[in-house]
Amino acid sequence: MKKQFAVIGCGRFGSSIAKVLFDMGHEVLAIDKSEEIVQNIANYVTHAVQADATDENSIKALGIRNFDVAVVTIGSNIQSSILITLMVKEIGVKYVVAKAQNELHAKVLYKIGADRVVFPEREMGVRVAHNLVSSNIMDYIELAPDYSIVEIAALDEWIGKSLIDINMRSKYGINVMAIKHGADINIAPRASDVIMQGDVLVVIGHNDDLRKIEKR
Amino acid sequence: MKKQFAVIGCGRFGSSIAKVLFDMGHEVLAIDKSEEIVQNIANYVTHAVQADATDENSIKALGIRNFDVAVVTIGSNIQSSILITLMVKEIGVKYVVAKAQNELHAKVLYKIGADRVVFPEREMGVRVAHNLVSSNIMDYIELAPDYSIVEIAALDEWIGKSLIDINMRSKYGINVMAIKHGADINIAPRASDVIMQGDVLVVIGHNDDLRKIEKR
Ligand SMILES: Nc1ncnc2c1ncn2[C@@H]1O[C@H](COP(=O)(O)OP(=O)(O)OP(=O)(O)O)[C@@H](O)[C@H]1O
Ligand SMILES: Nc1ncnc2c1ncn2[C@@H]1O[C@H](COP(=O)(O)OP(=O)(O)OP(=O)(O)O)[C@@H](O)[C@H]1O
Ligand SMILES: [Ca+2]
Ligand SMILES: [Ca+2]
Ligand SMILES: [Ca+2]
Ligand SMILES: [Ca+2]
Repeated sequence: MKKQFAVIGCGRFGSSIAKVLFDMGHEVLAIDKSEEIVQNIANYVTHAVQADATDENSIKALGIRNFDVAVVTIGSNIQSSILITLMVKEIGVKYVVAKAQNELHAKVLYKIGADRVVFPEREMGVRVAHNLVSSNIMDYIELAPDYSIVEIAALDEWIGKSLIDINMRSKYGINVMAIKHGADINIAPRASDVIMQGDVLVVIGHNDDLRKIEKR
Repeated sequence: MKKQFAVIGCGRFGSSIAKVLFDMGHEVLAIDKSEEIVQNIANYVTHAVQADATDENSIKALGIRNFDVAVVTIGSNIQSSILITLMVKEIGVKYVVAKAQNELHAKVLYKIGADRVVFPEREMGVRVAHNLVSSNIMDYIELAPDYSIVEIAALDEWIGKSLIDINMRSKYGINVMAIKHGADINIAPRASDVIMQGDVLVVIGHNDDLRKIEKR
């Protein structure tokens, strides 16, 4: 089902969201106060408009009240971010996502009606930090407070053995969800599948168990 | 094994990386040209130093050549980002991660020796965009060019049925890796496990198959 999205602020985060939504076939109105940014994104969205979104008349004139979702991506100017979020919520947009700079900013955004608050730089910081500490961990995604999904380069001692031989579940407490082998990916690994040199395993587990592998 | 990390630039992305690495027990030197930012991060890292990292003498005086990893997180000033990345590489830091503003910036960073280039805002933009298009998809992570991991709110027709009854693998082409039920998470779902109202399924699949569910 085609939806209408207004992306307010088209910095690095906002422009990425706008382009992906448009690519997926949705209607995307991109708004930025910078004329240069508007020109750069114009070919990748349905409409791109130069406007200061803190100006209520401009926002109303764009018919944003009829949009399904508004995404407020202004990060540096907390005052503008709060003002705009409040305004689009009051105009009647059902679902508003806003980017926050810090916890206090997030709290205010929720109080004034934001439906979801995101911290893109912080979340990616957590992910990259985990990827860096171990030469085995290639990627790291938080799933729940205590559980994560990680990509692990196969340990030397696993090479040539099957999952059942390695005894992943009982020895390491983790479950193998997929095995990447070069450009191939096996998303339904079986107990008899053998790990080869260069394989990357996508596993799910409790953070305590994952940390044991990460530390190696 | 304890490692030494230098985080150069402590904006939202850099400070998040620095804090997580320090939390995990590593030695973290945080550098920023802003005195205020240095004060804010000082309690969350091993050392926090106010310095302009484009100044070669400052960087050398901090002994960065002996660090295992340097993370250059300066996003807005492309010239500084390139200069600093080149310098820490030449000083002899083995592994250098740098944040890029756009493709051209990334290309230059790789050419001058960056070992890894990241686009935090862009990656999170992709993730948030996918989360937004469907009321079913709660989270979305790219695993490989054509495969992703997504969190799906259980479809109405799944409630009260077991995984084998729903026939996930053959009907939808996806594999269920975990089932979230409130604060509980089942990371080793069995064919006989029954989906309940409010459950969130963590599944892995080909993007084409996932899109079919996302569209519903
Ligand atoms: N009042 C406003 N109306 C419209 N656009 C705005 C307004 N204020 C800021 N913007 C635009 O929003 C975009 C993002 O804002 P800003 O650069 O402050 O955030 P950021 O968090 O640093 O962004 P990112 O990290 O995603 O690049 C910029 O392109 C800016 O021109
Ligand atoms: N030459 C430099 N030496 C030291 N620190 C610097 C230098 N240039 C910029 N910084 C610091 O790097 C941090 C990040 O830079 P900047 O704000 O330009 O990037 P950003 O991509 O907008 O950051 P983020 O989105 O992660 O908040 C800032 O705190 C800034 O003070
Ligand atoms: Ca910016
Ligand atoms: Ca940013
Ligand atoms: Ca790694
Ligand atoms: Ca910044």
